Amino acid sequence: FPGTFAPPPVNDPMWGYFTAIAGQDGEVDAEELQRCLTQSGFSGSYAPFSLETCRIMIAMLDRDMTGKMGFNEFKELFMALNGWKQNFMMFDQDRSGTVEGHEMAQAISSMGYRLSPQAGNAVVKRYSKNGRIFFDDYVACCVKLRSLTDNFKRRDTMQQGTVNFQYDDFIMCTMAI
Amino acid sequence: FPGTFAPPPVNDPMWGYFTAIAGQDGEVDAEELQRCLTQSGFSGSYAPFSLETCRIMIAMLDRDMTGKMGFNEFKELFMALNGWKQNFMMFDQDRSGTVEGHEMAQAISSMGYRLSPQAGNAVVKRYSKNGRIFFDDYVACCVKLRSLTDNFKRRDTMQQGTVNFQYDDFIMCTMAI
Ligand SMILES: [Ca+2]
Ligand SMILES: [Ca+2]
Ligand SMILES: [Ca+2]
Repeated sequence: FPGTFAPPPVNDPMWGYFTAIAGQDGEVDAEELQRCLTQSGFSGSYAPFSLETCRIMIAMLDRDMTGKMGFNEFKELFMALNGWKQNFMMFDQDRSGTVEGHEMAQAISSMGYRLSPQAGNAVVKRYSKNGRIFFDDYVACCVKLRSLTDNFKRRDTMQQGTVNFQYDDFIMCTMAI
Repeated sequence: FPGTFAPPPVNDPMWGYFTAIAGQDGEVDAEELQRCLTQSGFSGSYAPFSLETCRIMIAMLDRDMTGKMGFNEFKELFMALNGWKQNFMMFDQDRSGTVEGHEMAQAISSMGYRLSPQAGNAVVKRYSKNGRIFFDDYVACCVKLRSLTDNFKRRDTMQQGTVNFQYDDFIMCTMAI
């Protein structure tokens, strides 16, 4: 993995923050991530992230499947989170804490995902409550969409838009998220 | 769908129970399911189901994607839930409310799923907290495993253990769960 043999990034302003959150084992698990996101006020006036969403955030980046994040993953996650938050707030202009189903569909397409109306509807339906999508569910959706798309593309080496999945591989790359 | 044109199942002992839970719209959504499972004491001494787990339970059976369950799906879900609960309690002999990772792997294989050790580990890791699996997460895992396997098998018409997925179809059948 990149950075494994690099010297500790002591000059990186986020390094101290990361080590404080990571604790003794030097890695961030779902509980630590939830605490950090809650205490830093990342969600602002939105409800804090559920532990479930924190777990899938980690699963997205956790390539060695330890259930924990190192420093590079931690930074990668924060970049992604900031992007999704900006995206969400662009649509939630009345700061109600929710966006509408059709706004979510627009957001998905603005992130570059090309989904059929049917697939788009299925996704929106899955993450909405009474037709509206809360920030926590929005992020959970973005995480899964990104992970599943990454997994798909990694196997679609010819970029043909189709992948031949073995059952075991299919279960592994869909159940882990 | 089976039963759509059949007369209302007034003689079925579960019909009255179902209509009381379903309310005016005649279908059961995630909030109603959570309330019903909590009030009926289904989880016993185990923690009640999270709303998230109730949502994926409905998604598993919700073929018309309304986010709600009709009577037949409701009965189907209860049968599946009873099976998973028995299965869980068989492994949780000290009634601690959790099973160990290796017990979960055994349970998965006793349900007839053939996973490689690597895929089994990935699944167990995803649903465990500090190496143990709680009943709620256990059921969420069973629901997803069943749904994803059903989706896979439905496309594996030649039963060869491989499926050629288009991106859109892949996203639809994995994001909805
Ligand atoms: Ca830690
Ligand atoms: Ca709004
Ligand atoms: Ca209802």
